[in-house]
Amino acid sequence: MTITIDGTRTARAVRARVAAEVARLTAAGTVPGLATILVGDDPASAVYVAAQRRAVREAGMRDLHRHLPADTPQRQVAAVVDGFAADPAASGILLQLPLPPHLSAADLIDRIPVAKDVDGLTTGSAGLLARGARGLRPCTPIGIVKLLDAEGVAIRGAHVAVVGWGGLVGRPLAQLLLHRGATVTVAHEHTADLGAVTRPADVVVAATGVRGLIGPEHVKPGATVVDVGIHRTPEGLRGDARTDELGGVAGRITPVPGGVGPMTTAMLLANTLRAAERNPRPDAVPA
Amino acid sequence: MTITIDGTRTARAVRARVAAEVARLTAAGTVPGLATILVGDDPASAVYVAAQRRAVREAGMRDLHRHLPADTPQRQVAAVVDGFAADPAASGILLQLPLPPHLSAADLIDRIPVAKDVDGLTTGSAGLLARGARGLRPCTPIGIVKLLDAEGVAIRGAHVAVVGWGGLVGRPLAQLLLHRGATVTVAHEHTADLGAVTRPADVVVAATGVRGLIGPEHVKPGATVVDVGIHRTPEGLRGDARTDELGGVAGRITPVPGGVGPMTTAMLLANTLRAAERNPRPDAVPA
Repeated sequence: MTITIDGTRTARAVRARVAAEVARLTAAGTVPGLATILVGDDPASAVYVAAQRRAVREAGMRDLHRHLPADTPQRQVAAVVDGFAADPAASGILLQLPLPPHLSAADLIDRIPVAKDVDGLTTGSAGLLARGARGLRPCTPIGIVKLLDAEGVAIRGAHVAVVGWGGLVGRPLAQLLLHRGATVTVAHEHTADLGAVTRPADVVVAATGVRGLIGPEHVKPGATVVDVGIHRTPEGLRGDARTDELGGVAGRITPVPGGVGPMTTAMLLANTLRAAERNPRPDAVPA
Repeated sequence: MTITIDGTRTARAVRARVAAEVARLTAAGTVPGLATILVGDDPASAVYVAAQRRAVREAGMRDLHRHLPADTPQRQVAAVVDGFAADPAASGILLQLPLPPHLSAADLIDRIPVAKDVDGLTTGSAGLLARGARGLRPCTPIGIVKLLDAEGVAIRGAHVAVVGWGGLVGRPLAQLLLHRGATVTVAHEHTADLGAVTRPADVVVAATGVRGLIGPEHVKPGATVVDVGIHRTPEGLRGDARTDELGGVAGRITPVPGGVGPMTTAMLLANTLRAAERNPRPDAVPA
């Protein structure tokens, strides 16, 4: 029997705790706020940002937003980032990726102050994670760790195979898991024999962007499979794992949709709350 | 037959190339300089810093040095770091670790400008490495990669087990190897069955600080063993690997001494040269 991990339920619990804390902070004079910046008209990005903004409002936070035309020059996008950086109403800043190709994403991301970097993607935040120092961490990786914790899947001492080494998920996740005491194997497109390195693992995380890459030939019976992929298909959303084939092999598996996705949104709210708690508004007064 | 990797020879070649480039830069008006800061009287640290300073002078670089008493307060050490940060004669700054326990190493390291961070240990440098962006990398890890390259040991597509996840070697090395296309497994004190995760590997790097930890039960026949340990024993220097027992099992092995150690010094010089090339003295004039 393969257990389907319910990411929606755990995400709901996280969001409820965040909303309660937001209410407390607001009563004390600090309203947490998230600033989202969307450049251009990528449909997937528009859907994602709209969903985050809705969640922000539902949590009782301030929803700040700027939508810029696709041809906005670098210095104007930079000025918008700088404006939110200086704005005490913006506890956190999310610059939606990907950006149009004429823009330098790395330079724009690094204009976000580390204290407002709720996506955890600046060089400063990456360095704090590498050093194991306090800081804001990327949302999907901390959502995965939270989900494993909520399901009672052991991390310390476990062998976790992270398949995919992208900047948004694989890289930071590998480090988070190591800080939690997991033995970690990172595999990727250059890995010669993927099954050989994932079959020994207690947990297999698929964050490759390749639909249906992970099947029973990659997974030890009873292992946990975390599927980070999101692919739109005529049959609906699908992930990086062949979920049907893994039934009866994997011990637990996150579904797509309803697994990792909802956790990403929940952790974005949690990060915004953390940022607000560390940077209370100058006019905040104790309740 | 197990081949003993000659780190001294490769280090000598690196140092000769650095010295030639230093001579060229000096003729062009920029003399590269390394500032070393030693706090207290730890004998191993004193020996290490003296060796680095000698190598700096032999490479034709300027040897800047401050030795501070063990009870120097934080703000005074900080002032020395800041002084070298502002001094154009100091292309690079090395703050020797460990520091006396009353000092905050993390805070002092982060006063070193990223452009002068020849040890690659600041939060900024760690973030640049995590992102795969240009920057100075820690000396021992890049020395290991250089040594593997010099020996013709393939990295791309190879499976490398990094045993030990310390901030000086294991953490940055794992990322360097991933950027080079290796499949990487990181093991450490919480790893349940070390042999099970190291035996599949083509390269095993031991950076644990545990003398003689790695033996034939951990190594696939023909694999390369890189020994980063340095332990003083009545019989002389020993490493983290049981070199005698690995003879005939490992394909190649780095000796202790004469393996990784000389590469660390060579890469410190190479980093100082790189820092000088990027930050030429304001008074530099073309030759």
